[in-house]
Amino acid sequence: MKESKLKITAFDWVPEFAQGNVRDLRLRWALNEAGLDYEVETLAQGDQKKAVNVARQPFGQVPVIENDGKPMFESGAIVWRIAEASIALLPNDLGARDRVFSWYFAALNTVEPEIMMLAMLDFFASDKEAAARLRPDVIDAVQGRLNRLSDALEDRDWLVGDRFTVADLMMATVLRILKHTDIVAGHPALDAYLLRCTDRPAFVAALDAQLQTFSEHAAKYGGAA
Amino acid sequence: MKESKLKITAFDWVPEFAQGNVRDLRLRWALNEAGLDYEVETLAQGDQKKAVNVARQPFGQVPVIENDGKPMFESGAIVWRIAEASIALLPNDLGARDRVFSWYFAALNTVEPEIMMLAMLDFFASDKEAAARLRPDVIDAVQGRLNRLSDALEDRDWLVGDRFTVADLMMATVLRILKHTDIVAGHPALDAYLLRCTDRPAFVAALDAQLQTFSEHAAKYGGAA
Ligand SMILES: N[C@@H](CCC(=O)N[C@@H](CS)C(=O)NCC(=O)O)C(=O)O
Ligand SMILES: N[C@@H](CCC(=O)N[C@@H](CS)C(=O)NCC(=O)O)C(=O)O
Repeated sequence: MKESKLKITAFDWVPEFAQGNVRDLRLRWALNEAGLDYEVETLAQGDQKKAVNVARQPFGQVPVIENDGKPMFESGAIVWRIAEASIALLPNDLGARDRVFSWYFAALNTVEPEIMMLAMLDFFASDKEAAARLRPDVIDAVQGRLNRLSDALEDRDWLVGDRFTVADLMMATVLRILKHTDIVAGHPALDAYLLRCTDRPAFVAALDAQLQTFSEHAAKYGGAA
Repeated sequence: MKESKLKITAFDWVPEFAQGNVRDLRLRWALNEAGLDYEVETLAQGDQKKAVNVARQPFGQVPVIENDGKPMFESGAIVWRIAEASIALLPNDLGARDRVFSWYFAALNTVEPEIMMLAMLDFFASDKEAAARLRPDVIDAVQGRLNRLSDALEDRDWLVGDRFTVADLMMATVLRILKHTDIVAGHPALDAYLLRCTDRPAFVAALDAQLQTFSEHAAKYGGAA
């Protein structure tokens, strides 16, 4: 990742439940931590499935990053590349990097999938009654992950070593998918950890930037900021 | 990853629905492709939650890899490190590596989560009737991913360039989670792609090794090979 000309994609607006959780937030946050400037190309709702976007994002989603025209997709892949370019996100020590790498995948491939099942039940299921009946199983699965995560953190501030890393960035964006529930609040150590992450100026600026775009375009979608 | 002394963890046995899908398979396959020898420490069912394993795998799962005693967890993190050590899994060209990296995360963070929702409904849900009612939504989500994946492959043999890479390895292990269904068979290009991946001698040997251990220990768990 060089400063040259970084452009990311984001939506111009999304429904309220998704606001503050669209995955371009991860890129914005990482770029801010790394001190890299970027431009944003906003897509209107629906435009993500058009051929021009599918050519750079095969699943017809946001975000991508374009680095002098060369695109990458998947927030996990992109944010790791940003991290590799900045000591603000990754320690130099190779052993520590491997631990960060493990925790980074734990966020995306062990914690996020369970949390997305809950999001599916709560936001996307067409049969609300069936979703309610499955909810206890999924809550158990989510709580299982959070208990382990909380145990692993113990009384430390960050997942790896004594400093914020890109593993914390990714884990925090994953935990925020639960913000419509009080689940994280039920784990005091995780609640404090999440606040420690989201209090960072680079996060606050990233979130503001995403929400700002939504409120600029809300009228076009019927007014809901 | 150096040849020195690689040890991975695996289960001595799992119930039939999980056989051939336990995630140490990813490590075995990658290590075989890379031509690296490894030892296996088998865990009895339940032992994954003991303190000694949680100390190296915070979620109390398999697999981990130990490289001269230094542990890493998460199959995604481990397999990428193996790939970086072998031209058999990753091209040298940096642009191609970035494309592989994007597809690698697509397997783990875009395709696998939807497929795991189906696995949850089919294998783990305690309310079978509610699970059946939610199944159409989840099938739609899975089919959406597979349609896009199939479109992206077009008539090419592999995800990136004209050669097998670690992105194909990971995507194939994700698609195999559907092996209890005929969903992949409904996408001829994906069906052929998956067969192309799993016909590789390194995969066949990895699968044999995992299943061999299960049949050696089946008696202890009541006989089901
Ligand atoms: N694993 C992908 C997920 C991307 C994703 O879920 N994007 C959502 C927004 S957060 C999206 O574009 N949804 C619209 C759609 O699927 O049409 C990543 O992390 O980049
Ligand atoms: N994201 C993790 C998932 C690991 C995982 O799901 N392990 C399963 C076997 S495939 C396991 O150990 N399950 C037993 C348990 O959770 O107690 C990885 O890829 O390493």
